[in-house]
Amino acid sequence: MSARWGFLGPAGTFSEEALLQVAAATGAEVEPVPLRTEREALAAVDAGTVDGAVVPIENALEGAVTGTLDALALEVRDVVVLREHVLPVTQALVGAPGTALADVRAVVSHPQALAQCRRRLAEVVPGAGEIAATSTAEAVHRAVSEGGGLAAVGTRRAAELYGGEVLAEHVEDDPGNATRFVLVGHAAGAGTPLREPAAGARHRTTIVFWGGGDATPGWLVRCLDEFASRGVSLTKIESRPRKVGLGHYLFVLDALGSTAQPAVAGAVEALHQHCQEVRVLGSYPAA
Amino acid sequence: MSARWGFLGPAGTFSEEALLQVAAATGAEVEPVPLRTEREALAAVDAGTVDGAVVPIENALEGAVTGTLDALALEVRDVVVLREHVLPVTQALVGAPGTALADVRAVVSHPQALAQCRRRLAEVVPGAGEIAATSTAEAVHRAVSEGGGLAAVGTRRAAELYGGEVLAEHVEDDPGNATRFVLVGHAAGAGTPLREPAAGARHRTTIVFWGGGDATPGWLVRCLDEFASRGVSLTKIESRPRKVGLGHYLFVLDALGSTAQPAVAGAVEALHQHCQEVRVLGSYPAA
Repeated sequence: MSARWGFLGPAGTFSEEALLQVAAATGAEVEPVPLRTEREALAAVDAGTVDGAVVPIENALEGAVTGTLDALALEVRDVVVLREHVLPVTQALVGAPGTALADVRAVVSHPQALAQCRRRLAEVVPGAGEIAATSTAEAVHRAVSEGGGLAAVGTRRAAELYGGEVLAEHVEDDPGNATRFVLVGHAAGAGTPLREPAAGARHRTTIVFWGGGDATPGWLVRCLDEFASRGVSLTKIESRPRKVGLGHYLFVLDALGSTAQPAVAGAVEALHQHCQEVRVLGSYPAA
Repeated sequence: MSARWGFLGPAGTFSEEALLQVAAATGAEVEPVPLRTEREALAAVDAGTVDGAVVPIENALEGAVTGTLDALALEVRDVVVLREHVLPVTQALVGAPGTALADVRAVVSHPQALAQCRRRLAEVVPGAGEIAATSTAEAVHRAVSEGGGLAAVGTRRAAELYGGEVLAEHVEDDPGNATRFVLVGHAAGAGTPLREPAAGARHRTTIVFWGGGDATPGWLVRCLDEFASRGVSLTKIESRPRKVGLGHYLFVLDALGSTAQPAVAGAVEALHQHCQEVRVLGSYPAA
């Protein structure tokens, strides 16, 4: 029986590409389920209406994917991180078949994708206007069906799915851009091979915590020192609003190692002394 | 002679509202200059083509305004923070004059504004579709000129400027939402009253720094401890990509106090021992 995994739809998004690669890498037999937002995908896992979801958590240029972090930290209770996967971000300029670059008068895409391609687009289709869409896949669908002088920034796969033609490859300004995705599952899910990562592999552990005395000098230092004093390296720290007013934050930490190791487990245990809330979102093989 | 201050245009945005309030609060005589993005506004200050700019830096629900943080940290060299200002976020549903709520078939706005109003809109105009725009002001302009079943989420001021009618007040889901703006100026700018904040007022200092040994256990703890050990409270820490690949971050710290105080100045001085780069973006009266 295949597992149902959510992703940010529609078909042809980077999320779908990440899902297919994670499925291939883990040997899982997966039925992809398109969902609208990171929140919706994580809520579906929490409620058990899908078996898992692949969602973006961090981009090399844009930083944290805040919809994912906020939902993981504040909105779902029984969702755990099982895997991470890094996908290079390459964008194509896509139009209806037969479109010439010289005909392109406007480029449609998600505002973030447009922002990531602005310098290259000025060279490839100088003078073209910008039109906002809710996803790159929707943009490709629109450009292909409207035709005329409209082109879209999106994936090669979206061009194939929606019958578009790639007018230019690699229209992203920064060729080194990449997005980190996570595969999440339900905490109470049936044991699958994904829950038993290979022993000895390098792991990462993601932890959410918040105050206690978060306005006092040194509070965050005391929290982080529980890791430092045990020799645990932190690879990332992110602060996010707790959504109770300006000035109140929660923190999302990535530590190297697994909670199966005494140093990491000890740091997490000690963190409780300083915090109102401490949650481990998962220990998983580091990509 | 009035000062030219940039803001995120077009007229009728929250940025313009924040600019007008900062100008009123400081008694500055200001000519507002609409610019397209946070990056553009900060670059204009850096280049001296405007005297200052008011840009959003943090929202109570969405967190850091990454365009502002990234440009301040990585793209401009001679821009300093002079003031901060907190503006409550209230959104209105705006249509062409004579539009009835029952006629509204679609709502146009910036995707972030739509996301912040989704629950209320489902009550006020159930079943209405969503259309993306590049700013709330552009959305209001579009709704007013197209009319029909189109309404926009935007400010009251945009409704006035573009001849629209407010169909519903306070369509934001969270009534406590607020955005923190900063007024920035050129580091070498002529002395103005804004550069000499009242003695004794509570100040905040914003500092950017990065590694050094940022992958080693305890590096960040050693950095933050320079503040904690001197009794300096941190009100915010944000990590942002250094845009050199996943896993490399810079940090933006807000500390209570001014660099005119020995404890804050000493912490900043000591930070240099741990870091490749340390920059003070400004000490300014805390809102």
